[in-house]
Amino acid sequence: MNPIEDFFISRKTVRKYDHSKSIEPALIAELVNAARMAPNTGNMQLYSVVVTTGADEIAALAREGHFNQPASAGAQALLTFCVDMRRFARWCGLNGTASGLGNLQGFVWSVMDTTIFAQQFVTLAELRGLGTCYLGTTTYNAEAIGRRLDLPQGVLPLITVSLGWPAEEGDRKQRLPLGAVLHFGRYADPTDDELAAIYRATEESPEARRFVEENGKPSLAHVFTEVRYPKESAETFSNIYKEEIIKAGIKI
Amino acid sequence: MNPIEDFFISRKTVRKYDHSKSIEPALIAELVNAARMAPNTGNMQLYSVVVTTGADEIAALAREGHFNQPASAGAQALLTFCVDMRRFARWCGLNGTASGLGNLQGFVWSVMDTTIFAQQFVTLAELRGLGTCYLGTTTYNAEAIGRRLDLPQGVLPLITVSLGWPAEEGDRKQRLPLGAVLHFGRYADPTDDELAAIYRATEESPEARRFVEENGKPSLAHVFTEVRYPKESAETFSNIYKEEIIKAGIKI
Repeated sequence: MNPIEDFFISRKTVRKYDHSKSIEPALIAELVNAARMAPNTGNMQLYSVVVTTGADEIAALAREGHFNQPASAGAQALLTFCVDMRRFARWCGLNGTASGLGNLQGFVWSVMDTTIFAQQFVTLAELRGLGTCYLGTTTYNAEAIGRRLDLPQGVLPLITVSLGWPAEEGDRKQRLPLGAVLHFGRYADPTDDELAAIYRATEESPEARRFVEENGKPSLAHVFTEVRYPKESAETFSNIYKEEIIKAGIKI
Repeated sequence: MNPIEDFFISRKTVRKYDHSKSIEPALIAELVNAARMAPNTGNMQLYSVVVTTGADEIAALAREGHFNQPASAGAQALLTFCVDMRRFARWCGLNGTASGLGNLQGFVWSVMDTTIFAQQFVTLAELRGLGTCYLGTTTYNAEAIGRRLDLPQGVLPLITVSLGWPAEEGDRKQRLPLGAVLHFGRYADPTDDELAAIYRATEESPEARRFVEENGKPSLAHVFTEVRYPKESAETFSNIYKEEIIKAGIKI
């Protein structure tokens, strides 16, 4: 095993941060500067990141945008990575032409490029010893986040990463067996028995057993579909985010 | 400058590969194994990757899926990263419940998680000295790619990465000034003059001047809107991909 791969395999999400050691804005700028050299579609750079530091600002963004979840309220910095159609569209306008990206294709490109940018930042931050956590709440509260960060029309929050020096060992999640996600040549669709086997170790983990018991559900799958990600919530949040996408001038 | 950041800053996209040195499937599996430890939403792992190796298979996929562009036809391996709603949905079904992710929110999660997975793979491959290139053609030809790779219902191609040992120095793209994408505290919307200044170095680069001249256009922005990414094409490809998304059981 190559040492760098070992680092990537043993990486962990960190949700508690050590405020006794500060994070200089210059360090964040240095990491963002390196991260943005990751690939993007046609070099259009359809993204921006807004960095929130300072206790009061973080508290307000955590409250208004992230349901005060501990990884947000306890962060040393919050980075809001945004789909940014505005800069490119304004540049086209300045030159007397019009961007043609206000559609599903443009949206998918921008989401991919924003995500690549965010993930490269996360990797670089982790390589520096920082802890990070993706917050799942950004699309739910895109409007409130946009107001708080003064996002103008055409700039849409997509991903928030919380950042800090680790104050805990972190959370290393089990993954499905490699063969579940990696296919050579053709997609190998498992039989029902094979599929059950793929999920067995996950279902039998102490964490999963605790989830099932605490929630009084018949299976781990039910915890996902009835507690963590129920259809009704996903549809509500789909409608909320779709409105924000449309307000950003993107017709999907 | 930290050496690891220097590596990330100087990274380059590589489109020509040295076939005199082979890539073992075991190496690809090792890199995928490390890449999939990147974060994902709720540990649902809504992605798969199909690896294409072998001259005939690569030639067929390049022809049917990627307009035979050189980085695809000349690759030593092609990795097709897919939105995979199927595995999770089938597992829910096996347990007598139903996934609630066939909507915009589920789609956005899966696109982000698939992209994080792909980018982590790209980073790991580059750290090993391999060359990579994201192909922009995957969403255009999702149906043909799905047929070629036996993708079942619920599995949707999103990203293709071409892979090989570098046979060229690679292509290091200029980026806009850091301040264009990085904002502290609030989004700082530039004035028109500031915006023009942000794009000046890009517009004055030899590559941009050549693009403008070769295409006989009044500005670089026109090259983007009329040659590289015209609205009509983006809308056509939006409709094509939307159909594939719907066929995958996702209502966006």
